[in-house]
Amino acid sequence: MHRINTKSSSSASSVFVLHNGTIITMDPQSRVFLDGAIVIEDDRIKAIGHSRDILIQFSSLSPKLEDLNGQILLPGFINTHVHTSQQLARGLADDVDLMTWLHHRIWPYESNMTEEDSYISTLLCGLELIHSGVTCFAEAGGQHVSGMARAVEELGLRACLAESIMDSGQGLPEAWAKRTTEQCIQHVAEIPYENQFVVDTRGVDHGTVSYLEKIKLLDQNLLSAHTVWVNEDEVNFLSRAGVKVSHCPAAAMRALGFAPIREMLDAGICVSLGTDGASINNRMSIVDEMYLASLINRGREVFYKGTTDPTTLPAETILKMATTDGARSVLWDEEIGSLEVGKKADMIVVNPSSWTMVPLHDCISSLVYSMRTENIVSVMCNGQWIMKDLQILTVDEREVISMAKLASAELLKRTGIKIPMRMNVM
Amino acid sequence: MHRINTKSSSSASSVFVLHNGTIITMDPQSRVFLDGAIVIEDDRIKAIGHSRDILIQFSSLSPKLEDLNGQILLPGFINTHVHTSQQLARGLADDVDLMTWLHHRIWPYESNMTEEDSYISTLLCGLELIHSGVTCFAEAGGQHVSGMARAVEELGLRACLAESIMDSGQGLPEAWAKRTTEQCIQHVAEIPYENQFVVDTRGVDHGTVSYLEKIKLLDQNLLSAHTVWVNEDEVNFLSRAGVKVSHCPAAAMRALGFAPIREMLDAGICVSLGTDGASINNRMSIVDEMYLASLINRGREVFYKGTTDPTTLPAETILKMATTDGARSVLWDEEIGSLEVGKKADMIVVNPSSWTMVPLHDCISSLVYSMRTENIVSVMCNGQWIMKDLQILTVDEREVISMAKLASAELLKRTGIKIPMRMNVM
Repeated sequence: MHRINTKSSSSASSVFVLHNGTIITMDPQSRVFLDGAIVIEDDRIKAIGHSRDILIQFSSLSPKLEDLNGQILLPGFINTHVHTSQQLARGLADDVDLMTWLHHRIWPYESNMTEEDSYISTLLCGLELIHSGVTCFAEAGGQHVSGMARAVEELGLRACLAESIMDSGQGLPEAWAKRTTEQCIQHVAEIPYENQFVVDTRGVDHGTVSYLEKIKLLDQNLLSAHTVWVNEDEVNFLSRAGVKVSHCPAAAMRALGFAPIREMLDAGICVSLGTDGASINNRMSIVDEMYLASLINRGREVFYKGTTDPTTLPAETILKMATTDGARSVLWDEEIGSLEVGKKADMIVVNPSSWTMVPLHDCISSLVYSMRTENIVSVMCNGQWIMKDLQILTVDEREVISMAKLASAELLKRTGIKIPMRMNVM
Repeated sequence: MHRINTKSSSSASSVFVLHNGTIITMDPQSRVFLDGAIVIEDDRIKAIGHSRDILIQFSSLSPKLEDLNGQILLPGFINTHVHTSQQLARGLADDVDLMTWLHHRIWPYESNMTEEDSYISTLLCGLELIHSGVTCFAEAGGQHVSGMARAVEELGLRACLAESIMDSGQGLPEAWAKRTTEQCIQHVAEIPYENQFVVDTRGVDHGTVSYLEKIKLLDQNLLSAHTVWVNEDEVNFLSRAGVKVSHCPAAAMRALGFAPIREMLDAGICVSLGTDGASINNRMSIVDEMYLASLINRGREVFYKGTTDPTTLPAETILKMATTDGARSVLWDEEIGSLEVGKKADMIVVNPSSWTMVPLHDCISSLVYSMRTENIVSVMCNGQWIMKDLQILTVDEREVISMAKLASAELLKRTGIKIPMRMNVM
């Protein structure tokens, strides 16, 4: 796994102050400054407090001032499960069963992908990540990591990148099967079939997690995606080992099943949020995933309690999943995930005054249940604005979209995939 | 129930042509014109066809031309379950149990509402409806219908308005209980408790739908919202009677439970989509509801088949729910719901070239799974543009937002509701 850190600007060191905003720090005291200011020096947070105090305290440094005009400042979101190289496959495999999805759409797509395709796909995915307030993400395994890394550098994002590795499986592209297997710890317990396969072949009672426990692979360094088909014992294994879980609500509902998130949280497991890839989810917004996390986890209570439970997963818990618990999931919580002095300056500005969020009776819940991607107007990563007033500053959005349209069309041709018409095209 | 029709413009009759677009007609032949044009005269569709043919055929009338630049044209969406007078209550009752929601938040809110509040709330809700491509909606019952009607006229939308009526119930505001009861047919079978109450008091086996069948209230004129807690017999009652169902995925997941939508569709029931009110859903976008309908209905298959079924509810079925089946649900399918010659000119323009929808491998599924509210750039209702290039033309968006902020704060004060702080506010 490679970590990409955006480089600090080469220009002279500078101090600047964002003031007159509602600052939701997500720090251990859950502090919220209603008229707050934050001081940034280079790539780090130097101070946080009330606007008046901060402006007086730092006036001698003649800092650059920026008025937040009452908007909301939050730590950047962390997407702990995303496949950036699948962005060009969005819409390639909708409404098909899982075997068709894998064998006849995604594997042909991924095995025909070039390093340049991976670069363009990651750029396109990056636009969506930035617009949805993500400043750090964990790539769950894709093709041509060098292409991803180039894109991440240009986008100015923070990321953990991984390569997807498979050593066996019916219909696996030939080129992949030839590679040596060093690790295969992604995608834990995502479908019932997987558990059955493990029970049949590995001499354990239940499934993948029981097997990983048996071979002592469960560890606090393990980030387990989806983790849908686990029983009570396995939740306890995960908890004891300090394994982190990436909950991907859209992918879960669409294709995998309902993960026992409430039970995991009750067992003290660190649960964060992921979008999964565009070929299984289509929307790649952690903002939407927060909304979905609230809905899906209330809904599934019906099947255990006979009725939904609107109190199951309060908004503040979901906001933690997208920030501090995301940082813990990628083992980066010393530096990111909350707005605290000494941490990296990764943050987002939310405009709550549009028709999507008015009225703002309950600020925290509105950020989770009402906010939409377009409410995120500015994004800073590592002390640099990478989006300002909805304009991405690091790459040319239009150019990326043009490149993506061309590359996806060419790639589709190479795969020979024919997507059926759904209507009567004249 | 009152039907509000926007008035035709008083200016001289005119013909204009939208051309060079992908036109998804949703007509009985499911025709899609890849380079299509549509001719509009006054409030009606006069012709549809290939751009070249249409431009030649109508050149003698010197029509006003508008280039769609390859964007997508669709019938306006129909939201068949919305409470416009609850828009000012968005975020007022998040993360509380259903009894607190009703007795300590929504009833105090609604019973303190003035006619002017209802007008402002409906204006605010209207902004969201228009931005999400809705040209017609069914109000499920709210306060001060005259206020709603004024707002709907100004917004330029098409609507069916209804007043909410309740005659008994613990904690019911006194003023409401005094009113005579003429009808009480909204909100059918939305919670298990309701079914139990009906079984205990009305001498039927299962619940509300069984009782409505017994008293012969089930009819093709009935639009039944939610309809979550129905058994197989009751699905058949609804089907036989031609009752229409409004499926509200977000409200279902958050508070009510999973409606048997696949079973209803298999039984031939007309199912449409609704957002419900802002106090239970927060997001009021039929675009999000399409996405949610796809997720929730695949997810719930887990509980019946042991695995999700990604093929359960294909995109084209969901698009029908939001258009033609919406029109049937409000008994207006002779005039709206599809783009056909002679029907009302209610339509929306979608820009599919932003980072939210690229690449467009599968146009129909992308409209359901990838499209977000902001992809809807223009909306026409009754032959008049009510939104153009994301700007609402009928009301002043900023002014509505200012009015809404003020009115909601005043209303909150009058109710005396105190919303608990979730974090440590400094």
